[in-house]
Amino acid sequence: MASFPRPVTRLIDALERLPGIGPKSAQRLALWLLRQPPERSAELAEALSGALEDVHLCPVCGYFAEAGGCAVCDDPRRQAGLLCVVADARDLLAVEETGGFGGRYHVLGGLIAPADGVGPDDLQVAGLVARAEAGEISEIIFALSPTPEGDMTVNYLARLLAGKGLKLTRPALGLPVGGDLNYADRVTLERALAGRREL
Amino acid sequence: MASFPRPVTRLIDALERLPGIGPKSAQRLALWLLRQPPERSAELAEALSGALEDVHLCPVCGYFAEAGGCAVCDDPRRQAGLLCVVADARDLLAVEETGGFGGRYHVLGGLIAPADGVGPDDLQVAGLVARAEAGEISEIIFALSPTPEGDMTVNYLARLLAGKGLKLTRPALGLPVGGDLNYADRVTLERALAGRREL
Repeated sequence: MASFPRPVTRLIDALERLPGIGPKSAQRLALWLLRQPPERSAELAEALSGALEDVHLCPVCGYFAEAGGCAVCDDPRRQAGLLCVVADARDLLAVEETGGFGGRYHVLGGLIAPADGVGPDDLQVAGLVARAEAGEISEIIFALSPTPEGDMTVNYLARLLAGKGLKLTRPALGLPVGGDLNYADRVTLERALAGRREL
Repeated sequence: MASFPRPVTRLIDALERLPGIGPKSAQRLALWLLRQPPERSAELAEALSGALEDVHLCPVCGYFAEAGGCAVCDDPRRQAGLLCVVADARDLLAVEETGGFGGRYHVLGGLIAPADGVGPDDLQVAGLVARAEAGEISEIIFALSPTPEGDMTVNYLARLLAGKGLKLTRPALGLPVGGDLNYADRVTLERALAGRREL
């Protein structure tokens, strides 16, 4: 009985280890990659090797850094006293895109999620405490999703960082801009009312 | 404003070109790959380069072949007179797994799909005609999905191969084994009745 040659099986196995890719998708992707003109499939292999070689996580903030250093930590225009804690690099970019934040970042690498077996030790918590204790920072903004995992992580970190004379904040909860009040869920509306601001 | 370093953007772009992977998934996959221990992410890069180097499509049947040759075409135990036409390598394996076929294969590399811009010239049709005309083959089984694209492809190929003294067949349509007659769609049941066999 014919089966896939070993290099093909190895590729399928490697693709299957990616998050959100099941056995059927892995097969589909592998077959697609092997049917492309070689230079197009090689592009992905090279992009991956290149990124693994040229990019590392900044030992200070946890964001991507290149050989030249970390574009975020090394930027002298950023306020040293203001630190924004995010779950991952995508969230960092989302905060950057608002254009309304001029401080530095700390990328946790995830959120505390007991159901997925992720505890504080799996996140960049020790580094955050060290930065908080170094004395340069005055405010830490926890820009974590208002989900059970995000709330749990904020509570854990807030307890850990309490009593160090730092201002600990979190983005406001409320109605999304452009959203219909009528369609807001009960909890969001409740939080929006509780957090009402004078005109 | 911070953005992803160029090697990361390049990786995201390469992942986004994969079928079924959108911009958000590509970002998620890239971030995941760059957060793994280097040897685990390198595994995928190496598996891909390895497969691209060691595997090519057999010029005769279109299945995966290695430097040593094509495991299917070179197998002397396979009947040379019986040819099974399939859309892709996965379908070849599905037919193999039945254990009920002992002939050779021809992998088309897809199905005719005008809506997706796939015409006969994009498939391994010329090679199939050449094999059919070589005189060794007596029966061609079109093991293509009973979908509009599969039907179109079978009709096209059957017209092309008519008058060459070949027996052209297609797997039976009918109720799936273990399926509830009650849940079969109207067309399937109609075909099953029309194709009824004596006990």
